[in-house]
Amino acid sequence: MSARAGVIVTGTEVLSGIINDRNGPWLSERLRERGVDCAQITIVGDRPEDMHAALEFQAGLGVDLIVTSGGLGPTADDLTATVVAAFAGRPMVLDAALEGRIWAILERLTKRWPDLDQDAIRAANRKQALVPEGATVLEPVGTAPGLVVPPSGDSTPPGPTVLVLPGPPRELQPMWATALETPALRAALQGAVELQRGILRLFGIPESEIARSLEVLAGEGVPLSSLEITTCLRRGEIEIVSVFEPGADDDYAAFAAGIRARHGQRLFSEDGSTIDDQVAALLADGPRTVATAESCTGGLLAARLTERAGSSAYVLGGLVVYSDEAKASLAGVPSRLIERHGAVSAEVAAALADGARAALGASVGVGITGIAGPEGGTAEKPVGTVCFSVSAADGRREDRALVLPGGRADVRDRSTTLALHLIRRLLSAG
Amino acid sequence: MSARAGVIVTGTEVLSGIINDRNGPWLSERLRERGVDCAQITIVGDRPEDMHAALEFQAGLGVDLIVTSGGLGPTADDLTATVVAAFAGRPMVLDAALEGRIWAILERLTKRWPDLDQDAIRAANRKQALVPEGATVLEPVGTAPGLVVPPSGDSTPPGPTVLVLPGPPRELQPMWATALETPALRAALQGAVELQRGILRLFGIPESEIARSLEVLAGEGVPLSSLEITTCLRRGEIEIVSVFEPGADDDYAAFAAGIRARHGQRLFSEDGSTIDDQVAALLADGPRTVATAESCTGGLLAARLTERAGSSAYVLGGLVVYSDEAKASLAGVPSRLIERHGAVSAEVAAALADGARAALGASVGVGITGIAGPEGGTAEKPVGTVCFSVSAADGRREDRALVLPGGRADVRDRSTTLALHLIRRLLSAG
Repeated sequence: MSARAGVIVTGTEVLSGIINDRNGPWLSERLRERGVDCAQITIVGDRPEDMHAALEFQAGLGVDLIVTSGGLGPTADDLTATVVAAFAGRPMVLDAALEGRIWAILERLTKRWPDLDQDAIRAANRKQALVPEGATVLEPVGTAPGLVVPPSGDSTPPGPTVLVLPGPPRELQPMWATALETPALRAALQGAVELQRGILRLFGIPESEIARSLEVLAGEGVPLSSLEITTCLRRGEIEIVSVFEPGADDDYAAFAAGIRARHGQRLFSEDGSTIDDQVAALLADGPRTVATAESCTGGLLAARLTERAGSSAYVLGGLVVYSDEAKASLAGVPSRLIERHGAVSAEVAAALADGARAALGASVGVGITGIAGPEGGTAEKPVGTVCFSVSAADGRREDRALVLPGGRADVRDRSTTLALHLIRRLLSAG
Repeated sequence: MSARAGVIVTGTEVLSGIINDRNGPWLSERLRERGVDCAQITIVGDRPEDMHAALEFQAGLGVDLIVTSGGLGPTADDLTATVVAAFAGRPMVLDAALEGRIWAILERLTKRWPDLDQDAIRAANRKQALVPEGATVLEPVGTAPGLVVPPSGDSTPPGPTVLVLPGPPRELQPMWATALETPALRAALQGAVELQRGILRLFGIPESEIARSLEVLAGEGVPLSSLEITTCLRRGEIEIVSVFEPGADDDYAAFAAGIRARHGQRLFSEDGSTIDDQVAALLADGPRTVATAESCTGGLLAARLTERAGSSAYVLGGLVVYSDEAKASLAGVPSRLIERHGAVSAEVAAALADGARAALGASVGVGITGIAGPEGGTAEKPVGTVCFSVSAADGRREDRALVLPGGRADVRDRSTTLALHLIRRLLSAG
């Protein structure tokens, strides 16, 4: 027996696209790791009838658990607790002890705003302390408590348990961990087997090749049916995520070995690490320093390299050489090189890499020059043409020139991924 | 009479959180602008029975239109067209002309991969050319066609029209515009009143001040009930979006005037333009050129300035001066300035701005230096401390030092927004 769940995200500002929902996918991933299949994520506005309809619909799918996010605030349009109570057939009751604990939190928060209306705050406080009878209260992380609401027991078969969580991710995420420890949620999820997860990452291969490999491996008798395999293209890389029960470890190992045998050259990560993780580790462990000279990416590679804390240990800096004059004056690219080969050329990319290294005194230099579009393409060098060069102080280098697909933003973003892979190749070989 | 719609997003990789859905909120916003109320967004996996259940449920809500995204690819788990055909009671038929047009697209794309299995591609091509009988075909933006599938007419009352769109946003978004022009979609949306939309953008003010202004304006008799007003904080700016029927123009004008009177200094956009649009226009129209010297933002500002096509007309380039040595050698910041005031100081920010201007020969220079965290903060200069300077060749400058809230990524991103606002101030005043 395995468990199924549904997720309901509430909030008019989420439904109308003003705020991007992060809770639905996050909860779905956590559920999946616990062996719970997420049947559906539904986003509804702050209307009680829509929320109620969504609960009824997911219950009709036969789920064991419904997780809701949002609608627990102090204002009148925050209705989740009431709607869930009605759905579960439980009256709302005041939890006086909870009211006191929320008041203690509010007192601390409102000290900064002495002008606020104390009566209004008291009323809001009381509203947040009303809970469905028989529910387990999850202590507030912000000011709103969460709830585990079991089915009422009157209906046959019993309906799903409802886990009610607040909307802000920084409150929802820790409360999810707390909820997992409650007897009420454990009861709802009994029978669910915590799953394993394996991630393979590849670069420089079309997605269709992976689809073909899955067919070939299945044909060769590699047991894939015990693995739930999802393939997706992300920032120019292919990510193969496999989710499986603990007993299927050997099947996953056989699958990973099959992919390694067929695409070893393209497979760069089997342990969950990203290309960013790997490049950071190679630079930090070298120890080596890196400097960039970017034209079409306009600073995106430097920004990506400095995304992580501690990157100042190996990122010295970079040059954004958008104009030809900047390529010459900052990175020392000879003007005749640009005249002869064009600003987007292997020769200029190489000169940028060497120039970045020299200008910043780094052990590794990266040069990128290309046509991100939508204008500027020619028959010989169409939009998407990007030339890369990574060079090391000892003379080794990795150069590449290719035409990247997609619009301006895609070309720029994929260029940073490609540059990271070239840095990795250079440093792994060394 | 007004129209209602539902959105169904398909894809196991979206449901499981591997890919973040952008289509649901985007479609909801577009529907709202057309006067169509979005009742629900549902995310389902690639299972036909789940997709079918979601269609039936939304139809049961009485919606006039269901928009689906995803599941139109060439592989076997891309099932949307088939499921929608069954839902609408229409058989699938081969559109031979469409097959030919898709083939022409595929031939061009597959030239890069000469080893691919041509038969497999032909089969995939044929699958994508199978459409529900009577549906309007929307020409592919990528390789997948979209569909407008009218109700079959057999049922009373007739079910909803289904608009079937591909998953990738860069295909879905242009196809939405095409779909709006089709008679089939027009028929489904007849009676919907196209709404007006006004956007006010403010910078440098807490969200609670806007909430208070709404109360004050309502108290003063400004008619707000005809406006659906949503306020949200985005990248450090406040965006007030008002949606209203054409007759409420005067009410919106009164509201905008009220905000202008109360927060004129903070209100920087009333015409939908972003700070990026405004800075680009000020630079291009000047004409002026800009150069950056960035420490904690690591190239993000240069990357943001070069996001738009045509930015090479005014962005000369930039320096990413992550190390103190780079600040000195590239931007000419005197070492004693760093020793005396620290790398994160108003003095160093000013020297960076001037240094960037000098190094690149630009008319405007921007310097940013700060502590993005999580390490590196002190009692005097906590994490989030960022110093900014924007200087012009004629000696005018805008300097600012403050402590930005949030984590490392927030501090870096908000710093780019703040820098753009300082550029705007300097150039607007000039």
